[in-house]
Amino acid sequence: MNILITAGGTSEPVDNVRSITNTGTGRLGSLIAEAFAEQGDQVYYLCDPRAVRPQAQGIEIQTARSTTGVLEAMTALLQHHTIDAIIHSMAVSDYRPQGVCTVDALAAALQPLLAEDRPLPEALLEALSRAAGARAGKISSQLDHPLVLLEKTPKILPLLRDLAPNAVLVGFKLLSGVSHEELMGVAKALLQKNRCDFVLANDSTQIEGDNHLGYLLRADGQVSSYPTKQAIAAGIAAAVKERRTRT
Amino acid sequence: MNILITAGGTSEPVDNVRSITNTGTGRLGSLIAEAFAEQGDQVYYLCDPRAVRPQAQGIEIQTARSTTGVLEAMTALLQHHTIDAIIHSMAVSDYRPQGVCTVDALAAALQPLLAEDRPLPEALLEALSRAAGARAGKISSQLDHPLVLLEKTPKILPLLRDLAPNAVLVGFKLLSGVSHEELMGVAKALLQKNRCDFVLANDSTQIEGDNHLGYLLRADGQVSSYPTKQAIAAGIAAAVKERRTRT
Repeated sequence: MNILITAGGTSEPVDNVRSITNTGTGRLGSLIAEAFAEQGDQVYYLCDPRAVRPQAQGIEIQTARSTTGVLEAMTALLQHHTIDAIIHSMAVSDYRPQGVCTVDALAAALQPLLAEDRPLPEALLEALSRAAGARAGKISSQLDHPLVLLEKTPKILPLLRDLAPNAVLVGFKLLSGVSHEELMGVAKALLQKNRCDFVLANDSTQIEGDNHLGYLLRADGQVSSYPTKQAIAAGIAAAVKERRTRT
Repeated sequence: MNILITAGGTSEPVDNVRSITNTGTGRLGSLIAEAFAEQGDQVYYLCDPRAVRPQAQGIEIQTARSTTGVLEAMTALLQHHTIDAIIHSMAVSDYRPQGVCTVDALAAALQPLLAEDRPLPEALLEALSRAAGARAGKISSQLDHPLVLLEKTPKILPLLRDLAPNAVLVGFKLLSGVSHEELMGVAKALLQKNRCDFVLANDSTQIEGDNHLGYLLRADGQVSSYPTKQAIAAGIAAAVKERRTRT
């Protein structure tokens, strides 16, 4: 099988020396890559430049930084190879900086808008967009209270089923400090909405190094749980292989 | 000599899966560490967990993530060892997130303050502090326009001369797309203000991989320039050794 695995975390530039980074190290993704490689599969591994890399031989490694960069690299890989399964473990930024401004600049942009008869949230958003409009080369280190205005990034997972109609698709959902019911509910909704075959659900409060509690949900509702990153990796490789063999 | 080298870039948490990260890879710091180790010096290397690590034997490596963490680790190292030189190459965050809020929450906090007769910047800052007061466990991925309010971090370089009165102190200044005169002026001011022996001045637009234009300013006004990371590393190791031999 040809397997596309994304791993690590994206980073989105605030200016040219700072980024907003998602915390994924790539450790789990690298173990998943090794588990597939051990099964004899061809792995294409897409990660951020600082992510952990799998040690197994024959894995093709590419890097990308931003959400847009990851999406472009995945699209190109899916065009050039027949991919049998996509394991999208990378922690992709939900947001990227739209701009940076100071409180003073925001006040200056807001002042004339207050005279107009419009809702305050609308006036504030316009003032923010104006004040934070010009992306800084490098933000001065002398500002008192800079504000970073964020905007949503394109979501990758919802595009994958259309990009790869026949691939086994494994999504990931990381929440933080929620109940088991909420984690399962959110993961199930993600699976259905994005037409995944599996979703790996986990909670950051239940991860410490290689001790990593993960739940693998299947489209038929079945759930398997794993106590470590190694067990999650082996579980995903086996589940994908079995799914592929059945179809 | 005992040499303390900081390298890489700090990261400051936005929530428990996102950080604002400075872009330093640690590559230059690792080469500097190797250059000192080759001279027979004992190197203590303090870097972020994902930084490049020096390959030479006998280098003691410690990690720290945030500005506060780096400062604590440096203070402890300086208490436990007689350090002959500090090479502070780490890209330390000028800012850290104070909180996150939505435009709607900011508007709600600002509305009652607008009725009061006070300057708009002051009212905005108070509304921001209120709205962004509670640090989120993990920011929802559904917000339209989250705002990240930043605050200044403690500056490390100004503390080092008092922490280590007799050490050779090497500061770093990275600017972005400025004139040569501005870069030299800012670096010289940094050197004097922080009572450094040397400052390595560089511009991010003149760095591409190991091609890295660096200017080493001395307290006496002399400037040496180097074309690569390797040359910068060797230049700093030699300059510190010579400075140490003279005193």
